[in-house]
Amino acid sequence: MTNPYESANPKDVRRQIREGKITGQTSGMCSGYAQANMAVLSKDLAFDFLLFCERNKKPCPLLDVTEAGSPEPRVAAPGADVRVDIPRYRIYKKGVLTDEVTDISSWWTSDMVAFLLGCSFSFEGPMLEAGLEIRHITDHHNVPMYITNQECIPAGVFHGPMVVSMRPMKPEDAVRAVQITARMPYVHGAPVFLGDPEKIGIHDLSKPDFGDPSEIRPGEIPVFWACGVTPQAAAMTVKPDIMITHAPGHMFITDIRNASLAV
Amino acid sequence: MTNPYESANPKDVRRQIREGKITGQTSGMCSGYAQANMAVLSKDLAFDFLLFCERNKKPCPLLDVTEAGSPEPRVAAPGADVRVDIPRYRIYKKGVLTDEVTDISSWWTSDMVAFLLGCSFSFEGPMLEAGLEIRHITDHHNVPMYITNQECIPAGVFHGPMVVSMRPMKPEDAVRAVQITARMPYVHGAPVFLGDPEKIGIHDLSKPDFGDPSEIRPGEIPVFWACGVTPQAAAMTVKPDIMITHAPGHMFITDIRNASLAV
Repeated sequence: MTNPYESANPKDVRRQIREGKITGQTSGMCSGYAQANMAVLSKDLAFDFLLFCERNKKPCPLLDVTEAGSPEPRVAAPGADVRVDIPRYRIYKKGVLTDEVTDISSWWTSDMVAFLLGCSFSFEGPMLEAGLEIRHITDHHNVPMYITNQECIPAGVFHGPMVVSMRPMKPEDAVRAVQITARMPYVHGAPVFLGDPEKIGIHDLSKPDFGDPSEIRPGEIPVFWACGVTPQAAAMTVKPDIMITHAPGHMFITDIRNASLAV
Repeated sequence: MTNPYESANPKDVRRQIREGKITGQTSGMCSGYAQANMAVLSKDLAFDFLLFCERNKKPCPLLDVTEAGSPEPRVAAPGADVRVDIPRYRIYKKGVLTDEVTDISSWWTSDMVAFLLGCSFSFEGPMLEAGLEIRHITDHHNVPMYITNQECIPAGVFHGPMVVSMRPMKPEDAVRAVQITARMPYVHGAPVFLGDPEKIGIHDLSKPDFGDPSEIRPGEIPVFWACGVTPQAAAMTVKPDIMITHAPGHMFITDIRNASLAV
């Protein structure tokens, strides 16, 4: 079943989101264009958070950062408005989820900075095109994600473990997957690990910390990529007075073509 | 003539710089390790400058950014001290060069942030290893650099044109050069342009804005890479109360292997 917005233009889809005509998850929309995770923080935390992302590029691949108070991501989507162009948002106060909304205009203040971070949709497309199977897509469930024992490089007040997503693969497919995703350093890049999950502090693959477990078939190995949940988790530990994110699966669709993110 | 420090360890060379035993240019030292441009700004400008670098990755490839007041680049060279580990510095006050010194301890304040940016040494090594000729190295002069008509993406108070370095190449070598440098997005990456310099606003290749002209031989085309002078030039337009940089050719030698910067 293809998504009715699969070949739609990002501008059109964002407009329909803004007008309340599209309210669901964005997976499968605007094929070929990068979708982004979003985290909004106040300016006083922005330098440290930008530095955290810069130092931990694999889990925190920045696609754009707005200037304080401006809701327009001028690099990723000129003319867009991050307050209304995402179908669903989550509001966290002091680290606690307090609201889930479809418009953050009334929460937005002149000192807010929005961070748009690349997501795994961008590298899954090229893997599928290369003929690799991606288990959670085949099986129609969420990608399994795990908190590892690998600490990110801290920056100012921000710190925390790297969170990874996992895709089971035959070893020869894992090699192809490394080749394909290595070319996309701005959207998580090459895997951070493959093989024995104990080595990175994951004790039971059947119990992911987020998402749903993927079946690992005989002869397959787990392959781990740095995951965009990492920066949100790091931001949350600080318990900022206010932090706004996209709701899971409800991403910001940029004007950036995935192919333009390949090196 | 090889550099006596060609196979030296970065830590040892930094120590000797710190002790005043090495005072000259760092080109050719610590082969295989990335050398960095440095720009020091006060914290109130740091977010905008970090954002400028993030938005203009090709001319401004960040290798590390220190936390306000800390002179230790914990990612690029743990234990190092950017105040004393560079052979020669330049102090700019309100955009005017006022001092050239070998130690910036007395200028350093608790709100200063040091930005370390990748430089072209990192991609010239792999090009030489691949058998490509690099004209300014063959001819023992500085690389020619030009101010283009290509505006960087502004960020906060920072803006300015992209500055490029130029290397003449036979077309088939230019193709190899693209392949080799494209793999190194954290140290300028692939060329930004090749061919007719008028197209990027360069009217006379024999008159570079910085460095020395390179001879272009029959059948060769000019190949242009984004240059690390770009962020310094952008910072200068703001005329910050104080800004400190390395002196040209006197770089910060990191512990990062060039090979580890390849994707």
